[in-house]
Amino acid sequence: MAQPDLDPKVRVRRAPERAAYDAETVRAILDAGFVCHLGVVRDGRPVVIPTLYARDGDRLVVHGSPAMGAFRDLKRGPDVCVTVTHVDGLVLARSVFHHSVNYRSVVVHGTAERVHGEQAVCDALRILVEHIAPGQWDSARRPNADELRQTEVWTVPISAASAKLRTGGPKDEPEDYDLSTWAGVLPLVTTACDLVPDEKLPAGVTPPPHLTELLRPRR
Amino acid sequence: MAQPDLDPKVRVRRAPERAAYDAETVRAILDAGFVCHLGVVRDGRPVVIPTLYARDGDRLVVHGSPAMGAFRDLKRGPDVCVTVTHVDGLVLARSVFHHSVNYRSVVVHGTAERVHGEQAVCDALRILVEHIAPGQWDSARRPNADELRQTEVWTVPISAASAKLRTGGPKDEPEDYDLSTWAGVLPLVTTACDLVPDEKLPAGVTPPPHLTELLRPRR
Repeated sequence: MAQPDLDPKVRVRRAPERAAYDAETVRAILDAGFVCHLGVVRDGRPVVIPTLYARDGDRLVVHGSPAMGAFRDLKRGPDVCVTVTHVDGLVLARSVFHHSVNYRSVVVHGTAERVHGEQAVCDALRILVEHIAPGQWDSARRPNADELRQTEVWTVPISAASAKLRTGGPKDEPEDYDLSTWAGVLPLVTTACDLVPDEKLPAGVTPPPHLTELLRPRR
Repeated sequence: MAQPDLDPKVRVRRAPERAAYDAETVRAILDAGFVCHLGVVRDGRPVVIPTLYARDGDRLVVHGSPAMGAFRDLKRGPDVCVTVTHVDGLVLARSVFHHSVNYRSVVVHGTAERVHGEQAVCDALRILVEHIAPGQWDSARRPNADELRQTEVWTVPISAASAKLRTGGPKDEPEDYDLSTWAGVLPLVTTACDLVPDEKLPAGVTPPPHLTELLRPRR
């Protein structure tokens, strides 16, 4: 795939044939996950933490406690890198060198912006919970004013994002195809097989349909 | 859990009761995965990329093409943050606020060091492939001198690492236990269910036992 004329911080340098910059690919990869790795700079050094996210149109939403170290860093320097990765399988080649992984990932470079105001924070929490467990906003007790004050929300525009993905089987050296080494792909799938009730749940409370709906592959 | 006297860049600030610093916990979390998120600083901004890793004693090993952007960054500034995260389940609480995720993560802060020399690079590749797909080193064709030259290996000491984890069911507000909202955990498991043969595989080549062994939960 030819590389369009891009902001150099977005351009994928290595294996550009695996890169994609179209919004549809980027959005599909972002929408397939809910845990990102948020990178910030602290005292000149990189810090990477896992956190939940959701896409709200053209931006990502992340949230946490105001005590979260990364949020304190953002107040000093709002440059962030948000990376989302799905591992789809191991690529087992005929040579060690051509072993690989099938994956889909998106790297978003941006400037984080704090979301202010009770209603805006509440809206962000709705987007987060509805992305991760759709139906829970109408099922669980909604946040009260105290809980909203204990929640900090930041957004990151996804305008400077690149996707990178690998699919398919191994690509071996021509001479290695004569080897009798087994080669192929071990697909990896993340699944939810069970809804484990809280031990304090009153007798007779069963999972509603929007939760049993989650018992399917996540990727 | 009380926080020991730690390097401030390692100390977990938020939810310290979920933190662990003992080597055994850190190692178990690192050994359960093979994809990390590597954070570097580029022109003062954070960059986070997914990459494969393995633990080699007290250090992590990562590898890639010499053209990899993050490796070029390391030559200018070797400070890295390597984060490994396993998502174990969704915690569905009676209130939106107490929704959470069960997870295990390790954050390693360190200075990356380049591995030099054909033998040392070769050893690192063996450690990587044997961590991800044990048995492949003896099964696949080993790297030749050309392939070793095309591979760059870096290590990061795991001396400055912290683990953070959450397990168990939701922790709700006392008054919410009277609600009839379903609450509990949706465990998530990553599994490999199949070995998909490469289409160019000669007839009769079947997966060896060390590969069928991979058809079990990864976490």
